[in-house]
Amino acid sequence: MKVNGTHYRTVWMENHTVQMIEQNRLPFTFSTVALATHTATAEAISNMTVRGAGAIGAAAGFAMAQGFFEQQGSPALPHAAKTTILATRPTAQNLFYAVEKVWAAGVKGGADAAVAEANFLADADADASRCIGEFGGALIADHANILTHCNAGWLAFVDYGTALSPIYHAHAAGKSPRVWVDETRPRGQGARLTAWELSQAGIACDIIADNAAAHFMARGEVDLIIVGADRIAANGDTANKIGTLERAICANHFNIPFYIAAPIATIDANCSNGNAIPIEERSADEVLWQQGIDQQGQNHTIRVAAEGVSARNPAFDVTPATLITGIITEQGIIAASDAGKTATHGSRSS
Amino acid sequence: MKVNGTHYRTVWMENHTVQMIEQNRLPFTFSTVALATHTATAEAISNMTVRGAGAIGAAAGFAMAQGFFEQQGSPALPHAAKTTILATRPTAQNLFYAVEKVWAAGVKGGADAAVAEANFLADADADASRCIGEFGGALIADHANILTHCNAGWLAFVDYGTALSPIYHAHAAGKSPRVWVDETRPRGQGARLTAWELSQAGIACDIIADNAAAHFMARGEVDLIIVGADRIAANGDTANKIGTLERAICANHFNIPFYIAAPIATIDANCSNGNAIPIEERSADEVLWQQGIDQQGQNHTIRVAAEGVSARNPAFDVTPATLITGIITEQGIIAASDAGKTATHGSRSS
Repeated sequence: MKVNGTHYRTVWMENHTVQMIEQNRLPFTFSTVALATHTATAEAISNMTVRGAGAIGAAAGFAMAQGFFEQQGSPALPHAAKTTILATRPTAQNLFYAVEKVWAAGVKGGADAAVAEANFLADADADASRCIGEFGGALIADHANILTHCNAGWLAFVDYGTALSPIYHAHAAGKSPRVWVDETRPRGQGARLTAWELSQAGIACDIIADNAAAHFMARGEVDLIIVGADRIAANGDTANKIGTLERAICANHFNIPFYIAAPIATIDANCSNGNAIPIEERSADEVLWQQGIDQQGQNHTIRVAAEGVSARNPAFDVTPATLITGIITEQGIIAASDAGKTATHGSRSS
Repeated sequence: MKVNGTHYRTVWMENHTVQMIEQNRLPFTFSTVALATHTATAEAISNMTVRGAGAIGAAAGFAMAQGFFEQQGSPALPHAAKTTILATRPTAQNLFYAVEKVWAAGVKGGADAAVAEANFLADADADASRCIGEFGGALIADHANILTHCNAGWLAFVDYGTALSPIYHAHAAGKSPRVWVDETRPRGQGARLTAWELSQAGIACDIIADNAAAHFMARGEVDLIIVGADRIAANGDTANKIGTLERAICANHFNIPFYIAAPIATIDANCSNGNAIPIEERSADEVLWQQGIDQQGQNHTIRVAAEGVSARNPAFDVTPATLITGIITEQGIIAASDAGKTATHGSRSS
């Protein structure tokens, strides 16, 4: 997608260096960082310089390829690199998928084959997101009010995104969708990233506190909900950003269609149901402190909670397949209960 | 309740001056302010120096009494004051209830009678909250995990509170309740005020992002939900802080008891159902900006959202009576559908 007129991907590789948009500085500063080693790339995944299921997967694939480049004189390095990269984030299936694919390519064909595979996977992610936009775009009526949670836009993938891709597609087709953007505490990916993406693209949107979603549903002001996914179990249970489960329960209560948008690479066919998906618990500080800029543009990190009180910070929750209207994939819209079957029979391009 | 060993009410009157805890500075600074005129007291209600249904009601009653004191040489002043005070906040029933009561007393008996009525109402609010604690405390098993939203503690009333009063009562009775404190964006009354109150009282609690409530419900870690109310319609539909509706829908989904705790003064028998309750929409800036202190204790207001993007900020939502297990009042726990009947037959002490 374009930023100030220039086309960017979220993450890409130049020679042996991984380049990525510095997402922790968005929306206040747009910048990119260059990461010369697999260690630096892995750290960027951990500290969420890059975040979002597909972008994490692509970055992890590139990091694994870096591990093969760094192998010279140190035959054990790719394996150590693999261990390091797999330990960066526990929930997003795309990470494990990409690392295993690039690992297999590197073991068979060396560093160049690993890079080729990592690039193939990044291209496949962008292609899948584009196709998701086409299939999902058909669900969006003109002037539809769509609610989304967190950021599953192009910043969360290599390009286009998943939950936002149908909205971009509808907008490009001349429709006028309007988007409710859940703030998505504690990290605020909705208010910071989704709102930034949509406003860059000229799409009408309003940020709301996460608490306000059901209110607008109750008033008939939400026609459709589309969110992304970090991992989809074989039975269709879906792990996504904390708060997704609440929106799904409310959508069900109000009979509002609730769609997951995700590439087939997000489906973990080896995971039978949502109980088996590991849920990352992140630092309490993400709840207790907030970072942003003051009116003079100065950056501050401030405490927004009483002192001496603890917090719990699960980063994801699991929405049961029964609450999901359908999963928008690059091969079409499938029933959540068909997730495992679709992944097993999925084409190479997934 | 006690702050650093000294007993405080949230709002009280000394001579012609209204005294109140400055809640906008909590939890970082504990201070009180003295308001010499009805105009100043009304402004303190508007800008949320005092907030919470019962505390707003008491402050409005005192402000109305101030209007009668300021009458000398200006016979029309009490009526003008009444108009000003009624316009401060639209949703909390307690405000309208208190202003009408004090108005009637002042018209009949002058300024001293108005003050006496305002003090009577403040005492009645504290008494009602204490009784709510006794009735609600019986619902709390030892080691129960209770979720609450926003602040319906003593800071939201004259003393004791409503949703937190049963928890204080259970704790005083030797039980060990544990509380999940919803952050309650956008203003963070849970993270700032409820967490502060509970930690002052030595009650175990954890702050969670509003998004995490359903996750802990799904895991069986929430036994009971108690929240306050700003206005209860005759049919039991209840307006409370934005996000309450989401928690009620999720509680219903997971079969978790969902209680409203409120004095009978919160019931608006003239309001047939929730559709008739006016919902305040506050400034978008409350969503887009956050205020707090940095590690050096310096206060900052920071932007936490993309620039140039709008926000919507409804301050309350309406939970239908069908989702409410019961209403804990000072006269006992009633069915939500009996709200109107209870208010109509309620005793003078309510």
